[in-house]
Amino acid sequence: MSGNEIVTDVVVIGGGPVGLFSVFELGLLDLKCHVIDILDRPGGQCAELYPEKPIYDIPGFPVVTGQELTDNLLKQIAPFNAEFHYNRMVNSVEKQADGTFRLVTDADETFIAKVVVIAAGGGSFQPKRPPVEGIEAFEGKSVYYAVRKMDDFRDQDVVIVGGGDSALDWTLNLQPIARSLTLVHRRDAFKAAPASVNRMKELVMEGKINFLLGQVSKLDGENGQINHVHLTMDAGDLSIPATRLLPFFGLTMKLGPVADWGLDLNDNLIVVDTEKFETSVPGIFAIGDINHYPGKLKLILSGFHEAALMAQAAKKIVSPDERVIFQYTTSSTKLQKKLGVA
Amino acid sequence: MSGNEIVTDVVVIGGGPVGLFSVFELGLLDLKCHVIDILDRPGGQCAELYPEKPIYDIPGFPVVTGQELTDNLLKQIAPFNAEFHYNRMVNSVEKQADGTFRLVTDADETFIAKVVVIAAGGGSFQPKRPPVEGIEAFEGKSVYYAVRKMDDFRDQDVVIVGGGDSALDWTLNLQPIARSLTLVHRRDAFKAAPASVNRMKELVMEGKINFLLGQVSKLDGENGQINHVHLTMDAGDLSIPATRLLPFFGLTMKLGPVADWGLDLNDNLIVVDTEKFETSVPGIFAIGDINHYPGKLKLILSGFHEAALMAQAAKKIVSPDERVIFQYTTSSTKLQKKLGVA
Repeated sequence: MSGNEIVTDVVVIGGGPVGLFSVFELGLLDLKCHVIDILDRPGGQCAELYPEKPIYDIPGFPVVTGQELTDNLLKQIAPFNAEFHYNRMVNSVEKQADGTFRLVTDADETFIAKVVVIAAGGGSFQPKRPPVEGIEAFEGKSVYYAVRKMDDFRDQDVVIVGGGDSALDWTLNLQPIARSLTLVHRRDAFKAAPASVNRMKELVMEGKINFLLGQVSKLDGENGQINHVHLTMDAGDLSIPATRLLPFFGLTMKLGPVADWGLDLNDNLIVVDTEKFETSVPGIFAIGDINHYPGKLKLILSGFHEAALMAQAAKKIVSPDERVIFQYTTSSTKLQKKLGVA
Repeated sequence: MSGNEIVTDVVVIGGGPVGLFSVFELGLLDLKCHVIDILDRPGGQCAELYPEKPIYDIPGFPVVTGQELTDNLLKQIAPFNAEFHYNRMVNSVEKQADGTFRLVTDADETFIAKVVVIAAGGGSFQPKRPPVEGIEAFEGKSVYYAVRKMDDFRDQDVVIVGGGDSALDWTLNLQPIARSLTLVHRRDAFKAAPASVNRMKELVMEGKINFLLGQVSKLDGENGQINHVHLTMDAGDLSIPATRLLPFFGLTMKLGPVADWGLDLNDNLIVVDTEKFETSVPGIFAIGDINHYPGKLKLILSGFHEAALMAQAAKKIVSPDERVIFQYTTSSTKLQKKLGVA
C-alpha cells in the first residue's frame, strides 16, 4: 500500500518557529522545502501551548506573543512557497543507496529528500492518557484522543472528558450528530472559552446533552469496543452507556518515532555538532530544542542561529558542485529578488 | 594622569545590535553592564552605515531597518539600565592579579570589570586617509578627520574635502567661525542631503565660502602645521592658503587596539569556542562579527545566540557560588519582575 511520493530538496520535520525560519534560510539558498508537523497548524509549542502568552526574549521584540511571532515568520518565509503537511507524524526515515532519504508518515505518504531537518522541538505532542486501567485496549477503536473524522461519532453514545477548549469545542460540534452526548469534568470550573461554556450550559438546560461532575474510573466493553463508562462522583459511583470516549487531558511531549532512527542521543536529545548542526547521520540535521551540544540553551533565538548554519551545510549536500558565495539580504539584489522586494 | 575609575560586572565593547542584546541576556542574570562604543550613538554599523536600509533576515521581521532594530533593542534592554559611553575607544585591557580586568579608554577613563565582552563588529570605524603624501605628519595638529572641538577651527583658514553629509554639515557649521572656508570636492554631485547642498550653494553665491572642483594633491607646512593645500583641478593646479584641513573620505573598519591584546586571532578575527564564545583569555568573550569559529556566519542573528550562551558563562565568573537555574521569560515571574512586566 503506497500513497503519494513527494520528491524535494529538504524535508523539515516540525513547523515551530525554528522549523519555519529554517525555510527562510534554506530558501535564500534556493532549496525547496516541505514541512511536516503533527499539529494542525504552524507555530509548534508557541502557537499550541501559549499563543497569547507574551515572550520577552526574542531579539528585537520587547514583547511578542507566540502567535504574533508565528504570523511574522510565516510572512517572512512566504516568498519561498514551502509546502506544509499538518496532522502528520513521520514514522520512519531511511537512507537509500543513492544517499537520499525516504520518509514515511502515519498518513502513508512518502517523501524523498536529499536533506532531513529535524526541528521537532520537545518532540511530538501526544495526548495524555487518563489513569484508567485497560484503556489501551480500546484506543483507536472506541476511545480517541482527537477527532479525525466526525463520522466516527455519528449516532454514537459519546462521552467527552475534560474542561478545556478541545473538550468544549467537540461537545458543541458533535452534539448534533451523536445519539447521546455526555460531558464529564472533575470540577465545575472550565478553562475553555466562556462563550463555549455558556453554550454548553444552554444545551444542558435544553436537555440535548448531559453534564456530570466526576472522574472516569473504569471502562466496560470487549474487542476494543466500550459499552459503559464508570464514573466516580461525589454522590457515589455511576455507570453510563457509551460507545465512544473522548478524553481531553491535554498534551504531553515525547521524542516519538525519532528515537528509533538510529541517531546518537543524549538524554533523549539529538547530539549535533556546532558547525553544521548535523546529527550522527550525515544529511540529517537537528535544530532547536530537540538538539544537544555543549552550552546548549533551549531558546528560540538559538534555533534561528542553528537554522542559518545548517542551511549552508544543506546547500552543499543538495548542490555539491555549486560555489556558494555568502551574501547579505541588506546588500544582495539577488537575494532581494528571491524575497520579492527588488 | 588618571581619570574616572568605574567598577562593574561587565564591560561590553561595542554598542551594535549584538552588544545591545548582550545587555539583555546579561541583565536577565543580574549582571551590571557598561557599554563602550567608538561611535556617538548606539546601533553600530546598523545605525552608522545603513540606518534606513531594509534588513530582511532578522528572524520574525519580514523587513526592518537598522535604526528600527536598534530602537527595538534599546527598548528591550531599557529595564537593565546599562550605562553607555560613546565616542570612546578602549585602548588597553589588562588582567590584574585578582582576576579582574583593567580597561583604559582614549578618553582616559579606567574600567574595572570581572568580564569583558568584545562585540565590536568589524572593529573600529576609522576615517579613510586621503592618498596625499606626508599627510600623517599633520594629523591631529592641523589635519583632522573629525571635529571634536569647534574652537580648534575658530579664525582658521579651513579646507574641507568631500561631498557627503559630514563634509557639508561641517561646511555649514564652521563657516560662521572660520576666517575662511573652502569646500573641495572632486565632482559637482553631492551625496549629502539636498537641503545642505542648497544652503552651501547659497553661501558660495553670498561670497561667504569658496567651492572648488578638484582633488588635494599636496600639503605644504612644517612642524605639523599646514600652510597651503595644493589642488589638482581640470583647469590646472592651484595652491590655496590653509591652516586646517578636514578630509571626509568616509569610514573604514579596522580591528584597532584589540589586535594587541594578546588574544588568539584568525585572519584578524578573534578565535572563540562555541560553548561560551570565550577568547583564548578566560574572562574575555567575543561575540558577533568580530569572532571566528567553525561554521561562523557574520549574521546579526548568530550574534544574538552567541550573546545568550556567553551570558551563562559570564554569570559563572561574576557569581561563582550562585546556582543558576535556567529560566524562561515566558514563564518565570522572577525574570518578568526584572523586565518590569510582572
